[in-house]
Amino acid sequence: MFKINENYLQLNRNYLFSTISKKIDEFAQVNPNADIIRLGIGDVTKPLPASVIDSIHKSVDEMSKKETFRGYGPEQGYKFLREKIAETDYQKRGLKIDADEIFVSDGSKSDTGNIGDILGYNNTIAITNPVYPVYLDTTIMRLGNSDKLHLLECNEENGFLPEIPSKPIDIVFLCYPNNPTGTVMNRKKMKLWVDWALSNKSLILFDAAYEAYIMDEDVPKSIFEIENAEKCAIEFRSFSKNAGFTGLRCSYTVVPKALKTISSNGDVQSLNLLWGRRQSTKFNGTPYIVQRAAEAVYSIEGQEEVGDLVSYYMNNAAVIRNGLISKGWTVYGGENAPYVWLKCPEGHDSWSFFDQLLEKCHIVGTPGVGFGSNGEGYFRLTAFNSYEKTVEAVERINTHL
Amino acid sequence: MFKINENYLQLNRNYLFSTISKKIDEFAQVNPNADIIRLGIGDVTKPLPASVIDSIHKSVDEMSKKETFRGYGPEQGYKFLREKIAETDYQKRGLKIDADEIFVSDGSKSDTGNIGDILGYNNTIAITNPVYPVYLDTTIMRLGNSDKLHLLECNEENGFLPEIPSKPIDIVFLCYPNNPTGTVMNRKKMKLWVDWALSNKSLILFDAAYEAYIMDEDVPKSIFEIENAEKCAIEFRSFSKNAGFTGLRCSYTVVPKALKTISSNGDVQSLNLLWGRRQSTKFNGTPYIVQRAAEAVYSIEGQEEVGDLVSYYMNNAAVIRNGLISKGWTVYGGENAPYVWLKCPEGHDSWSFFDQLLEKCHIVGTPGVGFGSNGEGYFRLTAFNSYEKTVEAVERINTHL
Repeated sequence: MFKINENYLQLNRNYLFSTISKKIDEFAQVNPNADIIRLGIGDVTKPLPASVIDSIHKSVDEMSKKETFRGYGPEQGYKFLREKIAETDYQKRGLKIDADEIFVSDGSKSDTGNIGDILGYNNTIAITNPVYPVYLDTTIMRLGNSDKLHLLECNEENGFLPEIPSKPIDIVFLCYPNNPTGTVMNRKKMKLWVDWALSNKSLILFDAAYEAYIMDEDVPKSIFEIENAEKCAIEFRSFSKNAGFTGLRCSYTVVPKALKTISSNGDVQSLNLLWGRRQSTKFNGTPYIVQRAAEAVYSIEGQEEVGDLVSYYMNNAAVIRNGLISKGWTVYGGENAPYVWLKCPEGHDSWSFFDQLLEKCHIVGTPGVGFGSNGEGYFRLTAFNSYEKTVEAVERINTHL
Repeated sequence: MFKINENYLQLNRNYLFSTISKKIDEFAQVNPNADIIRLGIGDVTKPLPASVIDSIHKSVDEMSKKETFRGYGPEQGYKFLREKIAETDYQKRGLKIDADEIFVSDGSKSDTGNIGDILGYNNTIAITNPVYPVYLDTTIMRLGNSDKLHLLECNEENGFLPEIPSKPIDIVFLCYPNNPTGTVMNRKKMKLWVDWALSNKSLILFDAAYEAYIMDEDVPKSIFEIENAEKCAIEFRSFSKNAGFTGLRCSYTVVPKALKTISSNGDVQSLNLLWGRRQSTKFNGTPYIVQRAAEAVYSIEGQEEVGDLVSYYMNNAAVIRNGLISKGWTVYGGENAPYVWLKCPEGHDSWSFFDQLLEKCHIVGTPGVGFGSNGEGYFRLTAFNSYEKTVEAVERINTHL
C-alpha cells in the first residue's frame, strides 16, 4: 500500500482566512447594506503600471508570429531580466551580485517553500513567532513537528524583533520589513544576525518581499548590504508588492556563488549550483511574457510608476498609523512597511477585536493570533486598499471605538 | 553548520543536452554554411493560436483597470478554467471528473516533480528505463539512490512497453504516449496496470502530456477511461504540446476525490486534500492572464486551431516514420505521438549515430542512451520542426545514409 508524507498530518489546519470569510458572510447577511472596508488581506488593489501593460501586449504579439515565438526558456529566467535585476537592484547600489546569482521564479511563496528541497533533513530551523505561516507549514511538511524547529519569540519587550538564538540553529527564516508586524531591521541589528550566521556557519533565508517600502536610510533593502552576507544568506524578492504582480506572478531569489557549506564527505558544496539543479529539474521557468513585464518595471517609466504605487500605499499606511497613534493606541509598523500591527485595546483579544471592528466599524482586518501565539492580543491592518477607503476606515474607528 | 540535502550528490550529472550543444557548436564552427535541421528538442515551433493571443490581450487590458484588476487568485486555479477542463476533457467524454479534482499549475514538470512532497519516504517507486529524466531525478532528490527505486525494463522484446512489476511496488510513474519512445498503451494493457494498482493498493502517476496526439480509438487519452482508475491514479496534463504553451506555462493535474490511502494511525487520507494543501502552501497560482489563455483553448476557434497544430506535427511525425520505415529501419512511435524512436543502423550506438547524422546529414536528434541504459542503440527524433524542414531531413537521410 502506498504511503503519504505523514508530516502533513501534523500541520495545524489553518482556519484563519476561512473563519474570517465565514464571519464576514454572516455579518453581511444580517447587514446587507453595510459598506465593508477590507484591510485584511495583503493584496494590492491598484492596476498594473502602464509600462508593464504595454510590454505584455508587445511580447504577446511576439508569441503570435513564427519568427518571434518563444517556447521553453531557460529555467533560471531569461538573461535580459536577470541582468536588469542584478544591475538595478544590486550593482547600482554598490552590491556585487551577478546575473548568474539571480533565479527568476513565479513567487516568493514558491521559493521560500521549495528552498527546503536542497537543505538537509537534520538541520535545526528557527522561525519567528508571530510568523508568515508559509515558513512554518513548509518546515513541518519536511521535518514534522520535530524538536528541530525553534521559535524566536517576538513581543512587546523586544519590539517584535527577535533576539539572536541562544541555542545552536542551522537555518533561520527572517522577513524584513516583516509580515505580519511591519517591523524593520536596522543595519546594526542585521549585522548582528549576519555575524552570528558566519560564526555559526548558519544559513539565513531572508525574505525581502517588502523592500520597496523601506524609506529609512538606516534600514537595509537587501541583506547583501551587510558585509559578507553573501557567504551566509539567500534573499527572496518579489514584484508582487512593488509593481502589483500578485496576479501576474514573478519573483526572484538570489543565491550567491560565495554561499557554500561542507557535505559529510568533506566536499565544499555550492548552494547556487544546488538551487540551479533543483530549478532546472522541477521548474520550467516563468512565462516569457511575464518576464518581459518584469523587465518593464526597470524602465524609466516603470520605475516612476512603481515609485508612485509604493508612495500611494505608504501614504495609506501613514494614515492608519497616525490615526491609531492619535487615539493613543500602541502601534508597530506602517513605516517602511505596508502593514500596521496594533495592540488590541484593553479587554480585547485578537478575535474579539476582529468582531468589534466588523460590527461597529464595518472594517475587516486580520487577528494577530492567526500568525502565532505571540500575535494574541494584536491585530494586522494593511495599506493596500484605496486612499479614500483607508481614510474612511480611520474615521470610523475614531468615531465608533 | 547547516547541511544540504545530500541526495543531490547522488544525481547523475546529466550532460546530455550540454554535450549535444557542444557538439553542434564544434560542428558549426568547422561547417559555418551547414543548414542544420534540429529534430532534437521536444519544443514546439508554431506560434500561439489566434484565439489564445486575443484572449491574452483582453485579459491584460483587464489588469490595466482598477475595476477589473485581479490580484491573488485561487491557488488551485480559477473556477472558469477548472470547470472548462472538467467539462471538455472529461465529462463530455463520459468521465466523472469534477472541477474540484482539477489543479491548474505552471507545468507538468513542476507537478510530476513536486507530487513527491505529499508521498511518504518509505514507498517503493518504479520508473521505466528509458525514461523522462524528471521522474528519476526528482525521486533521487527525495529518496537518494536507494533500493526503493526500481527500473521497469523497456526494450525491443516488449516493444518498449513495461511489464507489470513482479516485485511489490507502491508508486509507478507511467507516461503514455511515451517520452522518449513514442509508444502508446492500449486499453487492454492500461487496464492491466489499473487492476494491478487496485489489487496492490499502489499509486499510478500518469503523465498524459502528449494525449492530444492520440488518434487511435483503442488508446485511452486519459487513464480515467479505465474503470476505477480514479481510485489509484493521478493524471498530469499540459497545454504545452497541444496549444503550444511551452513558453506560456500552463498545465493541470487531476487528483480524484476517490483516491485515498490509509495512514499509520489507521485514518483514511484523501490525496485530493493533501495536494490542495501542498499547492495552497507552496504555490500562488498560475498567472490570471495565462489561465484566460488556457480557457481560450476550449473555445470553438481554439479547439479548431489546436486540432490544426496537432495535425501539422502529426503529419511531420508520419513523414519521419514512413521515411525511415521505407529505408528498412526499425521504428517505434510517430503514430499517436510526436516522437519517433528509431533503432540505430547496424554498427552504431546512440552517440556514434548522433555524430553520423550531424556530419553527413546536418541533422540534430537525441541519443537514446540519454534517457537510460536501455536507450543505448536508439535515437529520438521529434515532429516539432516545420513541415518543409522535416521533409528535407528525411530526404537527406535517404540520400546520405
